[in-house]
Amino acid sequence: MESNSFNDPSLFGECSVPVKVGRKSKPGPTVVDVKGIKFGSAEVVIIAGPCSVENREQMMETAKAVKSAGGVILRGGAFKPRSSPYNFQGLGEEGLKLLQETRIETGLPIVTEVMDTRMVDLVAGYADIMQVGSRNMQNYPLLKEVGMLRKPVLLKRGMMSTIEEFLLAAEYILNQGNEQVILCERGIRTFETSTRNTLDLSAVPMLKHLSHLPVIVDPSHGTGHRWMVPPMAKAAVAAGADGLIMEVHYKPQEALCDGHQSLSTDEFTLLMTDLKKIAQAVGRDIYTHEIK
Amino acid sequence: MESNSFNDPSLFGECSVPVKVGRKSKPGPTVVDVKGIKFGSAEVVIIAGPCSVENREQMMETAKAVKSAGGVILRGGAFKPRSSPYNFQGLGEEGLKLLQETRIETGLPIVTEVMDTRMVDLVAGYADIMQVGSRNMQNYPLLKEVGMLRKPVLLKRGMMSTIEEFLLAAEYILNQGNEQVILCERGIRTFETSTRNTLDLSAVPMLKHLSHLPVIVDPSHGTGHRWMVPPMAKAAVAAGADGLIMEVHYKPQEALCDGHQSLSTDEFTLLMTDLKKIAQAVGRDIYTHEIK
Amino acid sequence: MESNSFNDPSLFGECSVPVKVGRKSKPGPTVVDVKGIKFGSAEVVIIAGPCSVENREQMMETAKAVKSAGGVILRGGAFKPRSSPYNFQGLGEEGLKLLQETRIETGLPIVTEVMDTRMVDLVAGYADIMQVGSRNMQNYPLLKEVGMLRKPVLLKRGMMSTIEEFLLAAEYILNQGNEQVILCERGIRTFETSTRNTLDLSAVPMLKHLSHLPVIVDPSHGTGHRWMVPPMAKAAVAAGADGLIMEVHYKPQEALCDGHQSLSTDEFTLLMTDLKKIAQAVGRDIYTHEIK
Amino acid sequence: MESNSFNDPSLFGECSVPVKVGRKSKPGPTVVDVKGIKFGSAEVVIIAGPCSVENREQMMETAKAVKSAGGVILRGGAFKPRSSPYNFQGLGEEGLKLLQETRIETGLPIVTEVMDTRMVDLVAGYADIMQVGSRNMQNYPLLKEVGMLRKPVLLKRGMMSTIEEFLLAAEYILNQGNEQVILCERGIRTFETSTRNTLDLSAVPMLKHLSHLPVIVDPSHGTGHRWMVPPMAKAAVAAGADGLIMEVHYKPQEALCDGHQSLSTDEFTLLMTDLKKIAQAVGRDIYTHEIK
Repeated sequence: MESNSFNDPSLFGECSVPVKVGRKSKPGPTVVDVKGIKFGSAEVVIIAGPCSVENREQMMETAKAVKSAGGVILRGGAFKPRSSPYNFQGLGEEGLKLLQETRIETGLPIVTEVMDTRMVDLVAGYADIMQVGSRNMQNYPLLKEVGMLRKPVLLKRGMMSTIEEFLLAAEYILNQGNEQVILCERGIRTFETSTRNTLDLSAVPMLKHLSHLPVIVDPSHGTGHRWMVPPMAKAAVAAGADGLIMEVHYKPQEALCDGHQSLSTDEFTLLMTDLKKIAQAVGRDIYTHEIK
Repeated sequence: MESNSFNDPSLFGECSVPVKVGRKSKPGPTVVDVKGIKFGSAEVVIIAGPCSVENREQMMETAKAVKSAGGVILRGGAFKPRSSPYNFQGLGEEGLKLLQETRIETGLPIVTEVMDTRMVDLVAGYADIMQVGSRNMQNYPLLKEVGMLRKPVLLKRGMMSTIEEFLLAAEYILNQGNEQVILCERGIRTFETSTRNTLDLSAVPMLKHLSHLPVIVDPSHGTGHRWMVPPMAKAAVAAGADGLIMEVHYKPQEALCDGHQSLSTDEFTLLMTDLKKIAQAVGRDIYTHEIK
Repeated sequence: MESNSFNDPSLFGECSVPVKVGRKSKPGPTVVDVKGIKFGSAEVVIIAGPCSVENREQMMETAKAVKSAGGVILRGGAFKPRSSPYNFQGLGEEGLKLLQETRIETGLPIVTEVMDTRMVDLVAGYADIMQVGSRNMQNYPLLKEVGMLRKPVLLKRGMMSTIEEFLLAAEYILNQGNEQVILCERGIRTFETSTRNTLDLSAVPMLKHLSHLPVIVDPSHGTGHRWMVPPMAKAAVAAGADGLIMEVHYKPQEALCDGHQSLSTDEFTLLMTDLKKIAQAVGRDIYTHEIK
Repeated sequence: MESNSFNDPSLFGECSVPVKVGRKSKPGPTVVDVKGIKFGSAEVVIIAGPCSVENREQMMETAKAVKSAGGVILRGGAFKPRSSPYNFQGLGEEGLKLLQETRIETGLPIVTEVMDTRMVDLVAGYADIMQVGSRNMQNYPLLKEVGMLRKPVLLKRGMMSTIEEFLLAAEYILNQGNEQVILCERGIRTFETSTRNTLDLSAVPMLKHLSHLPVIVDPSHGTGHRWMVPPMAKAAVAAGADGLIMEVHYKPQEALCDGHQSLSTDEFTLLMTDLKKIAQAVGRDIYTHEIK
């Protein structure tokens, strides 16, 4: 299979009209601007924060540490998709309010997940970036709904989704008129069980080859092990990622969710130094508030 | 791995409370009753019909042929989840109305898919069985919403979902008080590309071993090839399936969707005769209107 | 993807010469004759026996029970491919001698595995059917070596091999002049972990569609659970398998290998009765010594 | 799943004796020394060369370019495992002789594949590193045979093999007394089809966490696309790989095998410069003859 055949829109399943996410539809890259922070530019954008919003102290402490280490956007889930109905489902709107308070205090823009078409307006009232999670990558009504917003969308690859399906999911959003889409590789499901998922870093050059959209990587969900996040984060930047989204918690051992894959704030701080070196080795830099 | 460890609710991820879908929670099998047609009884229930509702003639002709061959429930999609935004997305409410007309004319109960929490009430006004499709198996708001209905739900396994995740998705529905859940194996995604999916028939005995819920099989999506539907439908019944859901179209070559995997009405009629033999060979029978 | 494109030899990777395993190369099915027992005929052939040859008593007791229940060929491993070097590796030539004794006593032909090109002549001196196991499906020197024999070969599908690769592996054997090849589906590796492998029964109609070679199924390795062998064995016959190979042990709880997936002789006897009903329901029968 | 549970030998399947490849068995890393070139040291080792040995000119031209760009070991296949019997199977011993001539001319040590236990002595007479390929990762007689040599072995991960199985395969070699094993991640088989395999870079930190053996990466087979080799090679070094093995051909468009994934000598030269920057960014360097 020749990769350049992917540039032929006819390859995209049954669709024959030109593909809006495809490179052919646009001369240069799409830059997604989140309050001045640019995904898809020369600088690599670091998003960090806890899996779930738990309480005020957790958010403030984590956010301050993220900011002081050089993270520029805060992540945190208020609505959580959990395999079991008996797991913590998130704080809901109360979580969104805590995110808002944290943004006011720290100035960090916020990315948070929306799972339900009925909640799109509510979440959009708080979030700077709307996240559509892996399990909803093919939730087409949700994709259409966020496509009608004029707000950035972080679209995570489904754990079972091909590159083609991933791009077609993004196409649903662009097709509603919203071009502000950030693609996120977060690990796919394979036979291997020593890692939570198999982080498919080859998706980074492949997506950037086929599409003009920015591509980021989530090494936390991609590996499921705290100690694997640093090497895989560095590898992602070396492979050409435009950003990273990582789980950081001020007390990982007490996290209500995903503590085993969350970096401590100290680990995150150390990693940021290393990431800067890798970014420079590939002719880029890490986006920071200082250099603006 | 010992299978009986699955009976231990602690195996189900992080949840520690007793699992409602588990065998331990209930002495016998759950029988889902759809207007007198019983899933989970000694008789095997055959659901058939087109992928999508296209028009009145298509529905009436197909439904009459399905009924005359011995199918007892009609399938047909009004809201269609399609990989590309440029593919036919279904007729929407107009499709639901055509399904209703067909039910009035033929007496066949109807199963149709719901993809959006906002559409649950609308679809429930027409459908006898609410289908939650593969792509939405982990759409938890949707699962909770159909869990609040008191109407049967056909839950399809995600194309890359484990048995455990499948049962936990069903648990979301039962946990809202709706026990009328029919599990459907429809093929999983593997490395094999000669078939559309890999129909995992071992899921049938596994699910029936672990859960009291009825289990049916979709050999049309499971294989993607019309000519493979008969052998795999027979195999599913031999493996212990409580029912089958198959794509049948009065003019497969003109179908707007999935024509290559739809049986013609003649092929379906022939298959029904063979299925009866297999059902009897495993001590069951095919449910028919006549024998009630 | 249209399945009939598989009939086009050009589809088989880079090879452009006609494919010897393909249906186009031959008008009817290949019948593999093992001392009068015919694979690929109207009758379904049952192979059974222990995973490993352990000792004389085990072989004699198991073989007699297999024979009395209607099994017509005995399986048993003398050279065992084991994931760990610290697991039981088989009795080697001593095991072959025990197999020979058992054949003399019971009259059952023998299938046993060969793993090493240097052992082909040795194993061929004892075996009636040479088995090439899953892990060696792409061991091309071994395929060429058994291709130079004039003795039946049972070729197991690799646990992560496509149908195309499986047929090309068989082609290596036919290309050396040995047409006596029996294909065996034994489960593929997927993300699902509740079963040892995912038994891909759709491989049965697919292989028979593409090739003239007989196809059998191994539900023991395919599932890894004793209690799943009966439903999946029945499903395999319903799907059109020309035979089954199953693990049976006179004392499964004491087996040195695979005891958890071995049927007891009583369970095997019961299953044989059920298999006969399924075979007849699809217009075939189970091959037995009596009816010859 | 906690990764440190992997350090518990009891996790390795049924084996209970201490695992020789495991970190617990040895205080520091194993350094594999190939004529003074050290795998597992602070320097990253670059192996490059064509897929197959084709002729004298091809080998000499490619080897000189590899050497002048900074590659220190030459790869080239004389015995080729090919899916189809009709594909080029390699030059056999003639190819080994061409490799030897190239070594004499350039001074580059040679790695080449052995596929057959009967060929181990022959290949060992020419090769500096014996390669056991993906398809033979579980060819246990072959593993035992190379385990009896006192020569480095490059063991490639099977395309369907878990990390655990990979380490157990290496254990077969160590268990025969040969500790000179280099592990190579080369892509695993998943559902994704836009790349030839899915390069599992998380295997690098995982293998180095569990084992004391050096780990290298093959981005050529791992991606199947020439243009993806540079980003994935850089990512591999960023993830901590001790070396890379890459396909380079002096005329990729005329290669008898894998031309589409082979770098030209110019592309390789450019890549070497970039790799040096990445190696330095992670506190290492690229091994070169100059610094000896």
